[in-house]
Amino acid sequence: MSSTTPASNTTAPTQFLQVNGQSYAYRRFGNGLGIPLLCLQHFTGTLDNWDPAVTDPLATGREVILFDNAGVGRSTGEVPVTIAGMARHAIAFLDGLGLETCDIVGYSLGGMVALQMVQDRPSISRRMVLVGTAPRGGEDIMHLEKPSLATRIQDPANRGYDVLKKIFFTPSPESQAAAEAFISRLSRRKDDLDPPSGPTVANAQMGAFREWEQFEGPRFNELKAIRHPTLVVNGVGDEMIPVSNSYRLSENLANAVLLTYPDAGHGSLFQYPESFTRHTAAFLASKSESAVF
Amino acid sequence: MSSTTPASNTTAPTQFLQVNGQSYAYRRFGNGLGIPLLCLQHFTGTLDNWDPAVTDPLATGREVILFDNAGVGRSTGEVPVTIAGMARHAIAFLDGLGLETCDIVGYSLGGMVALQMVQDRPSISRRMVLVGTAPRGGEDIMHLEKPSLATRIQDPANRGYDVLKKIFFTPSPESQAAAEAFISRLSRRKDDLDPPSGPTVANAQMGAFREWEQFEGPRFNELKAIRHPTLVVNGVGDEMIPVSNSYRLSENLANAVLLTYPDAGHGSLFQYPESFTRHTAAFLASKSESAVF
Repeated sequence: MSSTTPASNTTAPTQFLQVNGQSYAYRRFGNGLGIPLLCLQHFTGTLDNWDPAVTDPLATGREVILFDNAGVGRSTGEVPVTIAGMARHAIAFLDGLGLETCDIVGYSLGGMVALQMVQDRPSISRRMVLVGTAPRGGEDIMHLEKPSLATRIQDPANRGYDVLKKIFFTPSPESQAAAEAFISRLSRRKDDLDPPSGPTVANAQMGAFREWEQFEGPRFNELKAIRHPTLVVNGVGDEMIPVSNSYRLSENLANAVLLTYPDAGHGSLFQYPESFTRHTAAFLASKSESAVF
Repeated sequence: MSSTTPASNTTAPTQFLQVNGQSYAYRRFGNGLGIPLLCLQHFTGTLDNWDPAVTDPLATGREVILFDNAGVGRSTGEVPVTIAGMARHAIAFLDGLGLETCDIVGYSLGGMVALQMVQDRPSISRRMVLVGTAPRGGEDIMHLEKPSLATRIQDPANRGYDVLKKIFFTPSPESQAAAEAFISRLSRRKDDLDPPSGPTVANAQMGAFREWEQFEGPRFNELKAIRHPTLVVNGVGDEMIPVSNSYRLSENLANAVLLTYPDAGHGSLFQYPESFTRHTAAFLASKSESAVF
């Protein structure tokens, strides 16, 4: 990267990588001694849904790479209907960039993709941060039809980003104030924006969640073979992917530290970006084979 | 404290405080800008069971106060058979020292005492670190008679501190190596030692665990009123007080961050003292009303 490229998701230009007849939209910014950090996004999220208060502090120690999976934002192709399909695209993207390994922040859907990636090709990642996500066979994954979520999502007063205030945060005044600040940060970027995801993206990704809930053999058994140092993060009040899934991850992954936040929902990283980026930076800076930092 | 007093539990002299016809044994060492940190000890533990790798780094930022509750070590009186009784002694001790408030590290039994103290007198503590402990009504609290623990405790090969290697750590080579280092650190102190606890202490404290398992009304409801910033810590493999109890604490306390460690049992703070003291120091240094650090 040129040192004049602004190290912020508010201003970094969107780039496009051609691989296997596919065009992937991405942004890459920041610098430092760390290996590049691939950020894998949530359900229906695009490059523009990455909070600069999360990405930018991390970009002071390493390059941060944001990525639209196939069919999302300005990436071409069909949205895979399985996590495995999304993992194949993410690996193809990294291969196309010539990156043999990276660190990964996988948020929600993106955390599942990260887990699948390290199962399919362990060398693709060194350390992982898994936020608000679930293992295969997890419980109550993204059931937006359940009453507690459906009423908030279908409320006509919640337009655009406003719905995120209701489903990523808790009802407390403190959490809602953090939600306002989050939305304000997302709205800073004015140009070179991704198109918002529509029902085609949502339906395919929802199918991938349903498939991810299925499991064969001993539940969570595949996690025990993943030895990558992992930091698992969640809000204790996550109603989209309950915190119990983070418990199962930290109990069954061989090498995982768990951090949970109070009075926080699915968007804990956006509610407490200073804490999240400080802990994540400390975790990623470790050269140990242990997740403990 | 005189600045010449060594800030280590290996060398700090044991002191005695007379309160209400009772003599409490304690050690007080360290200095810094932080308010004093009271450390409340585990089942049958005395002043000599505090790992200097935990106490000493914390004593660089504040005074650390280690305390034998009534009937333990060289403190006089009867061992209370309830957590509430232990909390009364701890508060009387702080009153006797003239400390209106403190931070608290409560480990195992000591974490229960800390919870009871802030319910009985909220001003007694500013911030709490609760390690390997459980709320009232918690599950599977210190059932040493269950086969997984009983076989290890009754093994005649496990004499003295050796039993701690088997019940505070996991069987992995890494955890057992950490156990050896822990025992070695405990053995550094040669003089001015507490007598080890015998069956009288053990039986009374075990009674307190059994009483603490009982609850009335909505389970964990009393935790919601505790607003003290709290850091909850545990090893995911704790067999003495399972990590699920730490989940219930962080879910029901109003203001708690949870940190869990991989490949660790009840003694996670002794297995990872560098990480534990770094996170604890950062947590205690915060001036925020939030537990998030």
